[in-house]
Amino acid sequence: STSSDRITATLFPGDGIGPEIAESVKQVFTAAEVPIEWEEHFVGTEVDPRTQSFVTWESLESVRRNKVGLKGPMATPIGKGHRSLNLTLRKELNLYANVRPCYSLPGYKTRYDDVNLVTIRENTEGEYSGLEHQVVRGVVESLKIITRQASLRVAEYAFYYAKTHGRQRVSAVHKANIMQKTDGLFLKCCREVADKYPEIKYEEVVIDNCCMMLVKNPTLFDVLVMPNLYGDIISDLCAGLIGGLGLTPSLNIGEGGIALAEAVHGSAPDIAGKNLANPTALLLSAVSMLHHLDLNEKADKIQDAVLKTIAEGKYRTGDLGGTSTTTEFTKAIIDHL
Amino acid sequence: STSSDRITATLFPGDGIGPEIAESVKQVFTAAEVPIEWEEHFVGTEVDPRTQSFVTWESLESVRRNKVGLKGPMATPIGKGHRSLNLTLRKELNLYANVRPCYSLPGYKTRYDDVNLVTIRENTEGEYSGLEHQVVRGVVESLKIITRQASLRVAEYAFYYAKTHGRQRVSAVHKANIMQKTDGLFLKCCREVADKYPEIKYEEVVIDNCCMMLVKNPTLFDVLVMPNLYGDIISDLCAGLIGGLGLTPSLNIGEGGIALAEAVHGSAPDIAGKNLANPTALLLSAVSMLHHLDLNEKADKIQDAVLKTIAEGKYRTGDLGGTSTTTEFTKAIIDHL
Ligand SMILES: CC(C)[C@H](C(=O)O)[C@@H](O)C(=O)O
Ligand SMILES: CC(C)[C@H](C(=O)O)[C@@H](O)C(=O)O
Repeated sequence: STSSDRITATLFPGDGIGPEIAESVKQVFTAAEVPIEWEEHFVGTEVDPRTQSFVTWESLESVRRNKVGLKGPMATPIGKGHRSLNLTLRKELNLYANVRPCYSLPGYKTRYDDVNLVTIRENTEGEYSGLEHQVVRGVVESLKIITRQASLRVAEYAFYYAKTHGRQRVSAVHKANIMQKTDGLFLKCCREVADKYPEIKYEEVVIDNCCMMLVKNPTLFDVLVMPNLYGDIISDLCAGLIGGLGLTPSLNIGEGGIALAEAVHGSAPDIAGKNLANPTALLLSAVSMLHHLDLNEKADKIQDAVLKTIAEGKYRTGDLGGTSTTTEFTKAIIDHL
Repeated sequence: STSSDRITATLFPGDGIGPEIAESVKQVFTAAEVPIEWEEHFVGTEVDPRTQSFVTWESLESVRRNKVGLKGPMATPIGKGHRSLNLTLRKELNLYANVRPCYSLPGYKTRYDDVNLVTIRENTEGEYSGLEHQVVRGVVESLKIITRQASLRVAEYAFYYAKTHGRQRVSAVHKANIMQKTDGLFLKCCREVADKYPEIKYEEVVIDNCCMMLVKNPTLFDVLVMPNLYGDIISDLCAGLIGGLGLTPSLNIGEGGIALAEAVHGSAPDIAGKNLANPTALLLSAVSMLHHLDLNEKADKIQDAVLKTIAEGKYRTGDLGGTSTTTEFTKAIIDHL
């Protein structure tokens, strides 16, 4: 939502290291003169009966109003009677596509130096239906639900993304040789959408084979689109190729044009409050958010500064083998703007 | 089954390159003087109504009688009214555990040189139930079934395997944070069995995180045990780490002491009959079979010869970057016995 050229975005600092890495984003945004006002919302201390979770109804309303937000890690408190915070956000805001660009970071060495792909995960159904029951003692079942509506929606987004981001190819990941009806429907929807994008190459790959190909040669893929659980698995696998969840951005797309960017790593309670956390994933997620808002110049400027700081290697946090504090790393990024 | 110190084993050469790589195994076994008689069975040309598949009833009877067998790749012919050949074997022979040792091959370079783990996959239920239906137009569901019986059985096998193979640790792979009841039951069963093996370390790892850890540092794992689909995915991922399915052995354990070793790669119809196929996966699977029969000396001798041939690099098939024929590669192995 725009007011006098400034955009209001919801910010969930989250738990654990969340506030520290959110502070880093705020400082970098201020230094880069990004025209964004943050509307901060915190995870509640009690279950909100309207959301059945520690995520408050007011914070959801904020995202619905602003249509754009950034989220740090949220640890779901153990206990009964409430839902996972992440799942609550996905469900309540209908965040149907989870987009994770994954590319090798220049100068940060892993076994792979040539990763450049994007995973697009259906984020609302499949194995995450929550429908499970015990049939008889010792026999339990879960329902995986695939709908035409959700499959078309995520497939549309994948092809639209490919087209608008100069990507050549979309690969649908599936196990339709075993789950012929559910994954079969998913593929059918992808094919329908593919027909509307003759300029984008379309192919299908079985999940087991996809994982093998990814670890052998990740350059075989460009944009990957898949049902919920496969997306959960493959996006983490891909993050592993380039160094882990501390380095990968994530953007959730919801109905009505909502976009919620998030760091998908954990809240790292062991190092919380110690000025040791790596803000990279949240910063790059914020960059995805800026691209979504078409603030491409600001986005590129911040991304360049983050990547340059990591590439130089002088200031790196502990998880990347360095000794810098969050503050020092953030300052180095600001110096590179 | 033994007769005058010789053991009869069923051999399914399979389709495509199957007969060529099976011939390689037969020659190596003869040269190594392995006391095995092969009882060969071929994939039928018509659907056998008793198995609803091209796998004949007689061939199943052969495995049931001999309790041990070796299987090449079988391509399921496209069409209706019959089941996948691989799934038929698993179902009819109740092959409840799929065991895949995965280790870096000395001298064959991939991005990983330190892989040494074993995946043990529940092989009969889970997402492979075959229970799927359309609820209403555009909404389909699949049932994932987890039973206490099958989970205990595969967990028992995993710990037994760890103990008898000098392995220290068993990690159960799951997504019980989402599928609390199904994967929750699987974990419960693993914990019960773990309690009986205090000398083996037991841990649990979420599938997405497991994939990330595997690509970052596969030495974090020793024996992995998991439900069907996760096993399908993770065993292929692991194969990718060391070079692919052409190099990894597989052994299926069934009720009543049945063991069916198999090459899990495809039938490669494009190179079939051209003397170009790599018999390594089938040879190493045959080695697993020999270990199962406690013919450890013969097993080690053949494995050493295969690994030495690959390590030397003088004779390698095309898939490993060489120019040798199947026959030349096989001869080199025999020379190394
Ligand atoms: C924490 C967990 C529920 C979640 C998921 O499975 O989706 C996480 O793995 C993710 O990818 O965001
Ligand atoms: C061919 C297919 C049905 C099979 C499976 O999914 O189990 C294969 O991937 C395997 O791992 O043996």
